[in-house]
Amino acid sequence: MAFPKQVRLVEMSPRDGLQNEPGPVIATAIKTGLIDRLADCGLTHIEAASFVSPKWVPQMGDAAEVMAGIHRKPGVCYSALTPNLKGFENALAAGVDEVAVFGAASESFTRKNINCSIAESLERFAPVVEAARNHGIPVRGYVSTVMGCPYEGDIAPAKVAEVARALYDMGCHEISLGDTIGVGTPLKAKRMLDAVAAHVPVEKLAAHFHDTYGQALANLYAVLEDGVAVIDASVAGLGGCPYAKGASGNVATEDVLYLLNGLGINTGVDLNKLVATGHWICQQLGRHNGSKVGQALGGNCQ
Amino acid sequence: MAFPKQVRLVEMSPRDGLQNEPGPVIATAIKTGLIDRLADCGLTHIEAASFVSPKWVPQMGDAAEVMAGIHRKPGVCYSALTPNLKGFENALAAGVDEVAVFGAASESFTRKNINCSIAESLERFAPVVEAARNHGIPVRGYVSTVMGCPYEGDIAPAKVAEVARALYDMGCHEISLGDTIGVGTPLKAKRMLDAVAAHVPVEKLAAHFHDTYGQALANLYAVLEDGVAVIDASVAGLGGCPYAKGASGNVATEDVLYLLNGLGINTGVDLNKLVATGHWICQQLGRHNGSKVGQALGGNCQ
Repeated sequence: MAFPKQVRLVEMSPRDGLQNEPGPVIATAIKTGLIDRLADCGLTHIEAASFVSPKWVPQMGDAAEVMAGIHRKPGVCYSALTPNLKGFENALAAGVDEVAVFGAASESFTRKNINCSIAESLERFAPVVEAARNHGIPVRGYVSTVMGCPYEGDIAPAKVAEVARALYDMGCHEISLGDTIGVGTPLKAKRMLDAVAAHVPVEKLAAHFHDTYGQALANLYAVLEDGVAVIDASVAGLGGCPYAKGASGNVATEDVLYLLNGLGINTGVDLNKLVATGHWICQQLGRHNGSKVGQALGGNCQ
Repeated sequence: MAFPKQVRLVEMSPRDGLQNEPGPVIATAIKTGLIDRLADCGLTHIEAASFVSPKWVPQMGDAAEVMAGIHRKPGVCYSALTPNLKGFENALAAGVDEVAVFGAASESFTRKNINCSIAESLERFAPVVEAARNHGIPVRGYVSTVMGCPYEGDIAPAKVAEVARALYDMGCHEISLGDTIGVGTPLKAKRMLDAVAAHVPVEKLAAHFHDTYGQALANLYAVLEDGVAVIDASVAGLGGCPYAKGASGNVATEDVLYLLNGLGINTGVDLNKLVATGHWICQQLGRHNGSKVGQALGGNCQ
């Protein structure tokens, strides 16, 4: 076993969390309040928004206002999803520190989601990555459905490796491997990771595991054993699962942090403040707190 | 890594689950319906009741009626908690296959729970174990608070080992190690297990991990790596945490089974039937289904 000494948590709640929240569009002030609180917890990488057409994702329609409204904390990377060149230009104008493109390892998922093949999706990302390079903006690459697809079931680790490598070769500085529907288990996670790490250095990989079947922490523990040192998570488990009503999506950042603290792995994030932030955003949204640590510690910590 | 090929799941819901349910006393027919359904899922070890004074645990007041009402399936071990000799005699009369005594690794917890020292608690168990031996009834020994105590915090692994060994030497055939408040993390679980396994053979140990902080599956994965092959769990996560309102207690059997299936470990338990049983009991009790697998699969599986 070779656990990393330090893990960087990449906070997903303002983007991957809120974009999946049902109900009315969330006020910009709540989004900026969440992002500022997350930075105050010690998180150094926060995916703040998605620069995507509001027709597709109404919840993210105020991305520029969100970026303008936050109090930027030195040392924090505020990133945003930018599916195309127009999104990239808007994100650049809004002053994001990093952009991200979002691919998948499943042909069916790619087809259903963005109506093209994986190869075509990669072609669409290329100009975004190139424009970002020209502006000195790092690009994060997401690969979703790495341990299973809602349409075609199992995904071959070699396919995940192929897409991850294509994004890495294109210029993405970090590849986030998403178990979008949370169907993975630890040995599957290790096999998938091993396949990818044969093509992309493990220090360039992030684990983005959803907790739909309750397996996320076990899977994270398994890939931490293999040296993964970047983990995506969402405070209070914000963001449900679009493929199973009432089920969990993102693993809760509080629960991941509790695990890492227990393993003696440093993150620089304050658990009490994070739990309080989870309770705060759940109160604002009138939703259940999806973090077990949050539930266990109640509203007592400040 | 040396995962076991086969794991025995010990189903806790009829006892450790239901005894913690708030609200009115649950009808005997619901309890027997649950137990019969669990046996039909393929579970071979079900803790069916607690033969304890109804003054202490009103929810378990019908233990004898439960034992009389179930349809006993050949090959299934129906066990019961028997804190004292009177409880043992009643359990024997009711025809249980196995009895269990319940100790703790924390002096403060023992004092608060049963108003005596650990040493005194072991003295109280001795006549139960002896009587069981005389009747050829195997005895399971529980050790609670193995990774932390609500009153004194950390518990030394050596203390857990001492109590586990005392129960084993007394004649308990299996020792179930309980993280009663769910505060453990994987390396802590491994250290605790290693300390105990130096005194009691690992094949005589069971992991009874609560999911209060969401760590149970990661902890189970960690001790499976070390050869633990008996796991206690409760369908639908039945039984909350008496130490944190609204928090989780027992890890859900469905979620454990999903993990084990993913690791290729055989249990003989049918996941779809188990999920259906979880939904059934939650409907009967009007409570939330605490299994993430249950939530993800909804009520669709039969």
